[in-house]
Amino acid sequence: MSIFVKNEALFAIVQKIFNEKITFNKTLGLRVELLEDMRPVIKFEMRDELVGHYIRGMLHGGVIASVIDVTGGLTAFLGVLEKTGTEEIEESMELLPNLSTIDLRVDYLRPGLGKWFIATGDVLRIGSKVAVTRIELHNDETILIAAGTGSYVIS
Amino acid sequence: MSIFVKNEALFAIVQKIFNEKITFNKTLGLRVELLEDMRPVIKFEMRDELVGHYIRGMLHGGVIASVIDVTGGLTAFLGVLEKTGTEEIEESMELLPNLSTIDLRVDYLRPGLGKWFIATGDVLRIGSKVAVTRIELHNDETILIAAGTGSYVIS
Amino acid sequence: MSIFVKNEALFAIVQKIFNEKITFNKTLGLRVELLEDMRPVIKFEMRDELVGHYIRGMLHGGVIASVIDVTGGLTAFLGVLEKTGTEEIEESMELLPNLSTIDLRVDYLRPGLGKWFIATGDVLRIGSKVAVTRIELHNDETILIAAGTGSYVIS
Amino acid sequence: MSIFVKNEALFAIVQKIFNEKITFNKTLGLRVELLEDMRPVIKFEMRDELVGHYIRGMLHGGVIASVIDVTGGLTAFLGVLEKTGTEEIEESMELLPNLSTIDLRVDYLRPGLGKWFIATGDVLRIGSKVAVTRIELHNDETILIAAGTGSYVIS
Repeated sequence: MSIFVKNEALFAIVQKIFNEKITFNKTLGLRVELLEDMRPVIKFEMRDELVGHYIRGMLHGGVIASVIDVTGGLTAFLGVLEKTGTEEIEESMELLPNLSTIDLRVDYLRPGLGKWFIATGDVLRIGSKVAVTRIELHNDETILIAAGTGSYVIS
Repeated sequence: MSIFVKNEALFAIVQKIFNEKITFNKTLGLRVELLEDMRPVIKFEMRDELVGHYIRGMLHGGVIASVIDVTGGLTAFLGVLEKTGTEEIEESMELLPNLSTIDLRVDYLRPGLGKWFIATGDVLRIGSKVAVTRIELHNDETILIAAGTGSYVIS
Repeated sequence: MSIFVKNEALFAIVQKIFNEKITFNKTLGLRVELLEDMRPVIKFEMRDELVGHYIRGMLHGGVIASVIDVTGGLTAFLGVLEKTGTEEIEESMELLPNLSTIDLRVDYLRPGLGKWFIATGDVLRIGSKVAVTRIELHNDETILIAAGTGSYVIS
Repeated sequence: MSIFVKNEALFAIVQKIFNEKITFNKTLGLRVELLEDMRPVIKFEMRDELVGHYIRGMLHGGVIASVIDVTGGLTAFLGVLEKTGTEEIEESMELLPNLSTIDLRVDYLRPGLGKWFIATGDVLRIGSKVAVTRIELHNDETILIAAGTGSYVIS
């Protein structure tokens, strides 16, 4: 099976789980938009429900932390998948619930203003027990809103 | 005006802002339940919308990070208020929008399971520019679910 | 063998490793002073070599981070020991090199001034793969200089 | 005065302060090697005094945290200098003691093995009160040993 076909199928499953089955992702309106070279891109629109600063209409810090955590976890998950090279998609999906956040750092860099936002992640290390990823959140004007680092335990 | 009366009035205003005006707090169902000795207690119930792990029904990591950030910020806010000793409540309320998170660490310690959850905060330092607070999240069985540290800029 | 005797023997070995075999601990002048209820106390004196701020003569931030890391690791190590309840000290000592820091947060709260400093640690969680500890550094006037949180992988 | 000349002079002063006046930098053997486009490069050799793991001869975690902090601080300092565009070098140097670390995260990614190590920093944000930088530490084989993020208060 070619990598391309596999990624197509993988993308469909990841989308289904992240966009539909993880309820709070739906609450936030997060969508896995694209999986380029096994790197996730998570997108969401500004909505009233996500506002923290009621005067300036900025994203709530918790929304930002949530997206950072979700993107870091998905990046770690795809990194593990790539490293272990599991051919069976269904099997690899079983890994997903077994990846959990150890800890997370979020740096709030600029006001969470924008029409929509995009989060991307990079692998710093995929070990046998622990994965570490770095995450960035940009708005629709490519302004860096927040950055973060997450450690995840693989079991 | 006695401290007690002041705290009563302060509590009412803090409750109004946190429970009603910060939209995402409403999305999460966060409530400022108590202000003991200027220390905030934030409570919320488990609800389907807050679930991350769809099989085990645990709190989403983002919900936990959000509560840690909100509680840390409120703890910092009350710490600043106590330090500056502003007598005028309305005036001190104007401080609120001017306190923003620099960065946050969240440690996910145990599964986010429970009927309801309680977050509490402690001041590590209130400086003239930066406040640092430490936060804990327990479930209804007093199990420590998560801990965190937040740095906040005061302006 | 009684717990008391065991702790005496344990203390002697921990002291030997930490104070003598870990070279950089010697460079810093760190000493494991006491093991109360399996909680480590690490002490060190202010010395010229440890200065960062050459005008005010404060501890270098790296010295503070180092002590936070060392104390967090030792707290995690003793926590693992207590949980697994290994009777054989020599055997448990073999665990030591297999505990390594995943990540560390250090909060610099007040100027690193003092004649000597004391670091103490508390367990937040000892899991089967990951341990999380919280650390505080006080000076000789019991002023809280820094705080931190460390995650450690157990293998 | 041309930027080039200014950077030459700046480099000389930064070198003098960092390599000689900050005592603990000397203890660690840290050297500011290069200032490319206002980005600092800090280099140090492996030495016995810096060892943490006495069996495998790896860098002590505290050495890594120290270098991450120093590099992050210098990156922030140069970022502030570039932003404010101070023409007078002597004057800008006076800023240096007034930049202090708020908090630091260090991610220990791979064993601290190597003949020498290089730390580099990038600015995430230079605000009017707070600067945030991201730091990486590589060994002589360009293996990423550690990464970090630091927040610094500017006063």
